[in-house]
Amino acid sequence: MASLAIAEVNKLDSEEFIEVFGNVVENCKLAAAAVWSHKPFQDVDHLNQTIADFLDALPQKGKEGVLRCHPDLAGRLAQAGQLTTESTQEQKSAGLDQLTQDELSTLTDLNQQYKVKFGFPFVICARLNKKAAILNGLTERLKHGAEEETLAGVEEVKKICRLRIADIVTSEAKL
Amino acid sequence: MASLAIAEVNKLDSEEFIEVFGNVVENCKLAAAAVWSHKPFQDVDHLNQTIADFLDALPQKGKEGVLRCHPDLAGRLAQAGQLTTESTQEQKSAGLDQLTQDELSTLTDLNQQYKVKFGFPFVICARLNKKAAILNGLTERLKHGAEEETLAGVEEVKKICRLRIADIVTSEAKL
Repeated sequence: MASLAIAEVNKLDSEEFIEVFGNVVENCKLAAAAVWSHKPFQDVDHLNQTIADFLDALPQKGKEGVLRCHPDLAGRLAQAGQLTTESTQEQKSAGLDQLTQDELSTLTDLNQQYKVKFGFPFVICARLNKKAAILNGLTERLKHGAEEETLAGVEEVKKICRLRIADIVTSEAKL
Repeated sequence: MASLAIAEVNKLDSEEFIEVFGNVVENCKLAAAAVWSHKPFQDVDHLNQTIADFLDALPQKGKEGVLRCHPDLAGRLAQAGQLTTESTQEQKSAGLDQLTQDELSTLTDLNQQYKVKFGFPFVICARLNKKAAILNGLTERLKHGAEEETLAGVEEVKKICRLRIADIVTSEAKL
């Protein structure tokens, strides 16, 4: 996607803004729709922070819902080639399209245990982790409590969001 | 869509639930994703009320975001045939696909005034209103304050949601 300067972002009407930023939080157009009226954004950090604040302000069930809008890592949608464009690239960058049969079986099993325990899928920023780190992270995070894990998941959503926004908006340093 | 009994709804896993109910609030999968863990639902009213409670619990910017996820009535997306399936049928049922040139011009002008004043589009349950009532409603609601109008919009979202859910879930009376 072509990079937009923050000045151009600030000129987008709400429909255009939702079209451009509607998947920076996976499958959650509402995040983009909610923050649009905070413009003008000073810079890309301001935009990131505004979305992070929106996520933090959601009630507990809303935060869980944000996590539920994420696909399983190397799960059914990935196997069927039905992930969003962003998720496809991210899971690939972590090597999740190159799992051995054993690794896939372990990941599927841990994912399932995680969903049964917490009621939402395991979310981790795949671009910042390779497959070994993801398998370790999943094993560790399975030991958490539900509220702690909701917050850990939302922090990962913010990292994913920051990297997706960096693909769309030119940072000041690049200007 | 085939009707589901509430007992069948209660058996859906979160992915299936989001697939089935992901657009009962227009373009807002998060609403379905957030309420899934409230199951088992006693009946269709319980499901409706849970989504209404989710909408009411959103912070002000989140409520505005929900409204921004709705298309303009007889607007750009409608003209281009790019509305969601649900919105296409609903706008048609209100006669919005049969506007005269003068009516369309009035509606477009009022929609634009409304968006400039409030920062979100005019939302009304098209299945419960015909075009004359919609034009009158828009004229009246333009006189409101922003907070009052956010709440009025969200009440319309709940009516739209209730009718969309009624298309999916069998009510007790029909069993």
